[in-house]
Amino acid sequence: MPLYDDPIDGVRVGAESLRRWTARLIGRLGTPPDVAADVAEVLVASDARGIASHGTARLPQYAKLAQAGVMDPAARPVRERGRPGLALFDARNGWGHHAGRVAMDDAIERAMTLGTAISVVRNSNHYGIAGWYAMRAAEGGLIGMSMTNTSPLVAPTRSRISMLGTNPIAFAAPAGKYGMLVLDMATSTIPRGRIEVAARRGETLLPGWAIGPDGSPATTPEVALQGALQPLGGTEETAGYKGYGLALIVEVLCGILAGAAYGPNIIGLFSTEGKSDLGQWYMAIDPAAIDEPGAFGARLEHLIGQLAAAPLIPNAPGPVLYPGQPEAERAERSLREGIVVDREHWTNMRELARRFDVALPDPMPRPPAAGQVPREVS
Amino acid sequence: MPLYDDPIDGVRVGAESLRRWTARLIGRLGTPPDVAADVAEVLVASDARGIASHGTARLPQYAKLAQAGVMDPAARPVRERGRPGLALFDARNGWGHHAGRVAMDDAIERAMTLGTAISVVRNSNHYGIAGWYAMRAAEGGLIGMSMTNTSPLVAPTRSRISMLGTNPIAFAAPAGKYGMLVLDMATSTIPRGRIEVAARRGETLLPGWAIGPDGSPATTPEVALQGALQPLGGTEETAGYKGYGLALIVEVLCGILAGAAYGPNIIGLFSTEGKSDLGQWYMAIDPAAIDEPGAFGARLEHLIGQLAAAPLIPNAPGPVLYPGQPEAERAERSLREGIVVDREHWTNMRELARRFDVALPDPMPRPPAAGQVPREVS
Repeated sequence: MPLYDDPIDGVRVGAESLRRWTARLIGRLGTPPDVAADVAEVLVASDARGIASHGTARLPQYAKLAQAGVMDPAARPVRERGRPGLALFDARNGWGHHAGRVAMDDAIERAMTLGTAISVVRNSNHYGIAGWYAMRAAEGGLIGMSMTNTSPLVAPTRSRISMLGTNPIAFAAPAGKYGMLVLDMATSTIPRGRIEVAARRGETLLPGWAIGPDGSPATTPEVALQGALQPLGGTEETAGYKGYGLALIVEVLCGILAGAAYGPNIIGLFSTEGKSDLGQWYMAIDPAAIDEPGAFGARLEHLIGQLAAAPLIPNAPGPVLYPGQPEAERAERSLREGIVVDREHWTNMRELARRFDVALPDPMPRPPAAGQVPREVS
Repeated sequence: MPLYDDPIDGVRVGAESLRRWTARLIGRLGTPPDVAADVAEVLVASDARGIASHGTARLPQYAKLAQAGVMDPAARPVRERGRPGLALFDARNGWGHHAGRVAMDDAIERAMTLGTAISVVRNSNHYGIAGWYAMRAAEGGLIGMSMTNTSPLVAPTRSRISMLGTNPIAFAAPAGKYGMLVLDMATSTIPRGRIEVAARRGETLLPGWAIGPDGSPATTPEVALQGALQPLGGTEETAGYKGYGLALIVEVLCGILAGAAYGPNIIGLFSTEGKSDLGQWYMAIDPAAIDEPGAFGARLEHLIGQLAAAPLIPNAPGPVLYPGQPEAERAERSLREGIVVDREHWTNMRELARRFDVALPDPMPRPPAAGQVPREVS
């Protein structure tokens, strides 16, 4: 997921205040408090990690879906059937974030007995960042994975129209002194939001990002926005069929396995035309089932250390990173210095606050610039 | 995995004869018959699917490793520890193919009770095509996955040296009238063999394929062969960090989880310097745990039908394919018309046949050219 720079004219809000405000606002939509707390937790975690596209900026869209009756803000997921290692949940068209928390926790609990377990969820909705659910497992010392299907935006290799979603894959594992390794990636080369950013900035596009409506490579954002994203790898020559294959695996494990909607049949996640009926997939693996406690994390710490020390290519913008490193650094700063929301986001928050009568959190002061006040570094 | 065209001056051998010959030859290395049968099965399946790089062409290298005592051709894997859903096997430095068959079958059996199960294997060796193990599950109506770490050939994003293997991901699932969907992909943009082919043909390389020893993009095969492969996605600008992240997930699930060697510490798979101590990962998921029999395959069949009917980009070389489609078509032809091995491969087989006193299979006649004799198409 792309990490967004702090907007320069944004408003700074404490993460905890933002979380409480978000939970209260979601409660006003008719969502029970414990469910609202889960949703707020996932959304603010996204903001804190710098993934502004998947956090509280989505609240106006969620509110619209709930108020239009397209999703049920009060629904609770139910376990439908399964065996000890594999459970199917019906999210009953409620919040994807809450269904995900419940399904992942269920998989974690079973994995601690069995060694591994999977939950799949059908009849679900947008669930924010896929990484949050994988991290939930890694926080407890387990390996976690999460995937979701999404509405069609990606053209399979050779196709000129969108047939699959950006179908993300998330993976997290405990990594000793590095905390955790967290990979959270769309299976398209770039997310659609990156093209919208290019449009605002007047940039051209790189090869392998997108195609236009006639199926030719798109070099301008305007053409790309009428066309489709390309899968990771780009064209057939540069192995885009691998990204297509990965997107399809996600579709099979989510939509097809869970018995949810799939591929070109999914209605847009934020469309009020009808419910999305998304499928989501969660897995937990407990390394302690086959090893001494902590041994797994120690080995992963050693490998990350080796990667971080690798000699660099010319003009490298920095050292070799491990997946999730920039997001973890941003999250640490966000907890300390607050989350900076951009002006449009803040205006939307103010409008929601007024409409649902939930007082906005007080903005935080800007922290002293680096260098002015010595800061302890652990 | 790249599908290789039949060599024009090759020798045609019946798949079943080749399998029997291979099993006998492996038996001569001191391998018990049932173990040799597994290895031959996997190698000939690779040849039949058109993946000549991973089949019986590897026999001279395997024989060298066995005769040098670097691997133990007589070893049998043992289950070391685990819980019902997650088992750890020690391959005891034996054939990776046999350890893989045993570990996958164990996971399949447990998944049929639990809904899902994983086996990991340490102290293993090269296991041929990752897809074979995933297909083993799909043949029984289950979803199968398999991964292996490999010796370092890929430079992580920003690194100028190889730190990770081409670490393949294989996935298979039953797909109704389409048989099965089989994705079997290295997490690098291309395999090293593709560069060797470019060198023989005097081709230049595409961006995103490889870097030279100084870390700059390699445009000629000669420079690339001294450098490193790039992960799927290519450079940082075209999201190569996603391919790097995927290669790292494979490393974590294989080397790190199984307690095998990992990353830059793995000795070359075909080097006699020391044992490889590879890690491998197998998962089976039984859709019948949460659905009516056949419902999963029917949905996947429907989705594949939608993909196959998608409108095409200009100058598309053919329709949208599903992963594994070209390999399945080739395998069908190989069973009917034999496997064509190239001259170098045949010379090596003749040398092995002489050295180990196992008479070569008789070549098959060339089948009538298409068009000359009408062929039934089902």
